[in-house]
Order: sequence, then C-alpha cells, then structure tokens
Amino acid sequence: MQTLDVALGDRSYPIHIGCDLLTRAELILPHLKRKQVAIVTNTTVAPLYLERITQTLRAADISVIPIILPDGEAYKNSETLNLIYDALLENRCERNTTLIALGGGVIGDLTGYAAATYLRGVPFIQVPTTLLSQVDSSVGGKTGINHPLGKNMIGAFYQPQLVLADISTLSTLPPNELAAGMAEVIKYGLIRDLEFFEWLEQNVAKLNALDTDAMSYAIYRSCRNKAEVVAADERESGERALLNLGHTFGHAIENAMGYGVWLHGEAVAAGTMLAADLSRRMGWLSADDVTRISKLLVAAKLPVDAPDLGVERYVDLMGMDKKVVDGKIRLVLQQGIGKSVITSNYDADALRQTLSAIGKG
Amino acid sequence: MQTLDVALGDRSYPIHIGCDLLTRAELILPHLKRKQVAIVTNTTVAPLYLERITQTLRAADISVIPIILPDGEAYKNSETLNLIYDALLENRCERNTTLIALGGGVIGDLTGYAAATYLRGVPFIQVPTTLLSQVDSSVGGKTGINHPLGKNMIGAFYQPQLVLADISTLSTLPPNELAAGMAEVIKYGLIRDLEFFEWLEQNVAKLNALDTDAMSYAIYRSCRNKAEVVAADERESGERALLNLGHTFGHAIENAMGYGVWLHGEAVAAGTMLAADLSRRMGWLSADDVTRISKLLVAAKLPVDAPDLGVERYVDLMGMDKKVVDGKIRLVLQQGIGKSVITSNYDADALRQTLSAIGKG
Repeated sequence: MQTLDVALGDRSYPIHIGCDLLTRAELILPHLKRKQVAIVTNTTVAPLYLERITQTLRAADISVIPIILPDGEAYKNSETLNLIYDALLENRCERNTTLIALGGGVIGDLTGYAAATYLRGVPFIQVPTTLLSQVDSSVGGKTGINHPLGKNMIGAFYQPQLVLADISTLSTLPPNELAAGMAEVIKYGLIRDLEFFEWLEQNVAKLNALDTDAMSYAIYRSCRNKAEVVAADERESGERALLNLGHTFGHAIENAMGYGVWLHGEAVAAGTMLAADLSRRMGWLSADDVTRISKLLVAAKLPVDAPDLGVERYVDLMGMDKKVVDGKIRLVLQQGIGKSVITSNYDADALRQTLSAIGKG
Repeated sequence: MQTLDVALGDRSYPIHIGCDLLTRAELILPHLKRKQVAIVTNTTVAPLYLERITQTLRAADISVIPIILPDGEAYKNSETLNLIYDALLENRCERNTTLIALGGGVIGDLTGYAAATYLRGVPFIQVPTTLLSQVDSSVGGKTGINHPLGKNMIGAFYQPQLVLADISTLSTLPPNELAAGMAEVIKYGLIRDLEFFEWLEQNVAKLNALDTDAMSYAIYRSCRNKAEVVAADERESGERALLNLGHTFGHAIENAMGYGVWLHGEAVAAGTMLAADLSRRMGWLSADDVTRISKLLVAAKLPVDAPDLGVERYVDLMGMDKKVVDGKIRLVLQQGIGKSVITSNYDADALRQTLSAIGKG
C-alpha cells in the first residue's frame, strides 16, 4: 500500500492506494468520531462491494447504515441528494456520524455534498471504486450535483477525512469506464508532467491489462499531481483550473448529448483533442505532438473525435460553463506536452475553425 | 452609523448599523467583484425596500437582477432554494456575481445557502430588514434550509462580505416581529452580558418605541456579543452553542406547532423560560432571577408560557435536534443572569418536571 498526504492545513488528509483495502478496518477506524457510519453507494456497486466493507466495519464494532441510490449521472441531482438526507434524518444521524462514499464520481460528489451540507457539515470518507474517481474526483474536495441548466452548478468545496483507493475494485469495472479514467490519468501528464506522459506511452498496455504495480503507480502519480495543484489553489482561483483541460469542451459534449450518454472521461478525451487542435492552430503545439496525444488516447481506448454539434451550439454551451470570467471563455490549452496554460488570449476565429473542423477530418 | 468588525481571519467582514443605509451605494461598492448583483427578497419586503436599494445600486452603474420569493418560514425549503438557482442560471450569473439578501432571517438563510452552493460559492451581502435578522441570523455565517423532518437540517457555514443593518427598515416591522427580535437581544444579556441585561431592563420601553439611539445601541451590542462568540468558535463546537439558549425547547415548539405559527423569537422566549425553570430546579438560578427574566420578556411583549405538548412529545422533538451528542440532550441553562452553560449534566427528572409543569402555573 502507498500513502499520499494531501496538504491542506487543518483540512489535510491521506490517500491510501493498494489492493484489498476494503478489508482493512484499521485504516478507517482512526478517522471516525464515533462508531457509526452511513455508507452511500448505488445499485451497481452495492452487490459487488457493500457487504465486504460492511462486514469489515461491523467486525470492528462499527454500526453501519447502508444508503443505496440508483446508478448513473442522471441521478446526480437534488432528488437523489434528498434520498441521502432522508435516510440520515430517519436514522437520526448526528454531527459525528461519518458518511462513506462507496462508488464512482457520482456517488463521491453526491455523498461529499451531502456531508458538506447535512447539519452544516459532517465528516466523510471517499472509497472510490472506479479509476476515474480514484485519480480525479476523490482528490480535491469538489462536491456537488447537476442542475437541469448545467453540470456541477450546485456544490461545495469540502475535504474528506480519508480516501481509500482500492485497486482491486477495478477488476469489475467495464472497459469503457476504465478508459474514461485513463483520460484523466493522461491529462496529468499533459498539463504538468512530461515524464509521466512518456511513462504512460510506454506502459499503457500494462494499465489496460490492470497490471497491479503499473496501476498503483499511475494512480499514485496522478493523485500526487492533482494534490500538488489543489494544495496550491484549493478554491480554484488560478492554477487549479489547469485540471479542467478538455473539460470546457467536454462539458459541452456531455450536456448536448445528455448526461450519461458519453462518459465524462470520454467527453474529456474528445475535448482534450479539441484543445490540442486549437493549441496547434495558435502555433503553441506541434502537429507531431497532437499526433502523440491522439495515439496515447487511442491506445487507452478513448474516443478522439468530438460529436459535430455545430459551432454555435458549442460556443453557446461553453459560454454556460463556470469558468467564464466577465463573459469571456477561458480555456486550458497546451504549450507543448507537459505544459498547459489557462487563457482567454487565443484567437476566436481559431476556436471556430477547431469547432467547424469537427467531423471533417 | 456604527461599524463592527467580525474577526474571522480571511473571512472577516464589517457590520454597518445605522439609519437610511439602503441609499448609500458607497458602503456596498467596495465589496463587489464585478458590477452585477442579484437581490433576493420576498413578496412582503419587495414593495417596501427593493426599489430603494435597486435605485441606489443602478445609480452607481451596478446591474441588478431581482429575485422575489414567497414570504414565510414555510418556504425555507429546497423548492424555494431552486427558484434562486434557476434565476441565477437563467441570468448566467458567474462566480463574481454578488448575491444580496434583502429581508429577514428566512431570506438571509436561503440566500446565504444559495451563495454557499451556487457554483460552489459566490460572494454575498446581508441586508437584514428585521430586528431578529439584524441581531442574530446575519451574524455568524449559519445558512441553510429546513427539511420536512427538521429545522435547519441542511446548510453550510458561509460568511457574508458585508452586513448592512438599516434600522430605518424596522419602522415597517409588525409589532410581534419586533418582539421576536427582542427575544434574541435579551438572550445576549442572559448568556454572557449582565450589564446589557440591566441596560435592557431600563430601556425596554425605548426599544419598543423604536428610539433610534437605543435601538442602534442594542443592535450594536447584540452583534458584538454574537461576533465575539462566533469569532471564538466559528464552527459551533463549543461556546457558540450558548447562543442556542431557549432554542432546543424553541425548535420543539416551532416544529410541533408547524413552522411559522409561532415566530422563532416567540418560541425562543418561551423556551428561555423553560430553560430558566429547569435551571431553578437544579438550584442554579434563584426564583427572583426567574421573575426578572420573565418580567423583561413580558415588557418586550413576548410570550413566556410554552404550549403544553406533553412531556413525551417535547422530549421526542428535542431528541431530533442537532445539538444531540451520542444520544444525550445537551441544553443551555442559566447559572445566574449573564452566565449560561452548555450541559447534559442536569437531572432528567427535573427536565420532565419542567415540561410537565407547563400550563399548570
């Protein structure tokens, strides 16, 4: 097991990464304020892992309240959030009850937001069971829900007490969800870690085959990259926005296609290619580097072709994004591999060319 | 105008107290990140004060989005919260749009919670228009909404950029709401400020008559007391719970009678008398002091007789309260006037005697 400490002052917390962590109560116990937890999970993950972690905790004399939600991005909304509140209130959960998020990013975001807002804040622990949530959403304290008018529009910054990334849970992950997680892994290489990008080019086949050592290293290095960015900029005023590489395009894709039709990581991968294309048009990224990025994404079984929504629809959907400052769309763009910038200082026509070239390559 | 600074590190903010503050754009301007605000108010306050503050802001070249909600505690829920989110999203409000809460405690709590959670946090300004909200809910950063199973169960700690307590707005306040605010004013004297309690005994008639100097002093001193408590204990782990004098009983009363039937301050006043009665039974407060408290509450036109719900119903409703730790009910009780303690170290039978004595005095 490897452990990474996310340094956020009095909100610091450890991330444990390794095999079979769900059987190790001693990792969880020191973080509980009382011996009561509510485990929030969904109908897909519950049959796979709920009993395992519940047995582990009950054997350590911890009372467990299971809360099983419907599965899917479509349920990341206020109605599902209310199911959590209802269960917590019906069980009279108090301020020292710990919520445990057992599942992917949707469960983590919902549970973290419920923890941030139930009784104005209770402790929570992330147990991410997808690669995407292990390398992305369980690090950094972003929690929240979608609104009919936009993704992640309602939320809070709220840090967990602990993250347990059990890579054994990846064995039951559908291949497209493993690939979606790889999109975020590759992102860390692209935005700030050329060495890691090159390691990924060499090791992508091992990761596809769920090689334990390679996967553990990839998760550790991804989390370390994210933790460094988050520690420098917890509230997302500056550098943290680099983590949104491909996301402004990606959110537009997810929104247009309907949440859940494209997986988040798939939309980010296609969005990353749009960002790379725009970077190339600006003269900031070579055509060869665009090809390298594309090859790695393809090797990780990710889509590189964005859907053709039309230029106006893209611009409109991107304008709805949170990262707008005074009406101007800021984007994360590449300046070579391993270096990204957040800028609105790109050519608007080049953006339109990137968008109108979709489907014509 | 008097100004009080609430010291909370990088979340510090000023409270301005005085007449006709709604006409003074220069108090608001320095706190805006861009010249756009959304003013959240209700159907009662809007006809009285929305135009005044809107004109002030528009004359200073600030764009104003009005959001007018239905009035009443019954609307402090997730449906009304969604009306705020919808309006913010429809107007494409961004992270640097400031929300202004124009109204009483319900508007302040709803708006503050919307600000805490919209795009994971946008700035907000409190413009409380009731005595209760000026001395209580606009200081301390508690925001939130009710849940069908309990009051203020969902929320966040979130500080405003600024509080403008315009005492001119009290002239349109119904007498029972003025009295409800006085319950909280008196509370500060009871829990930690004997000198203020004695000042109130001398000046309660002036306050009932809305004497400007007396009211300004009472608000300033109340806010200072609350600010001192909050600064010492922002997240309510210790001393801050003293502010809940009368509230555990009071919430039970509000909950049982239906939210809005008893005003919050009225329920707190009756709850304060129950706490005083229990304190007397424990030998911590003299019968004379109980009489002094009762006389001051009556002079402030507040109810001192709690409704007779029956002992079991009280205990059950009080057990639902957030202030429960490991299943034990902690209460704020008096040890003389000007000194309160938070304790579960009282006699359970004495509590039952207090509750069963209701309606038999």
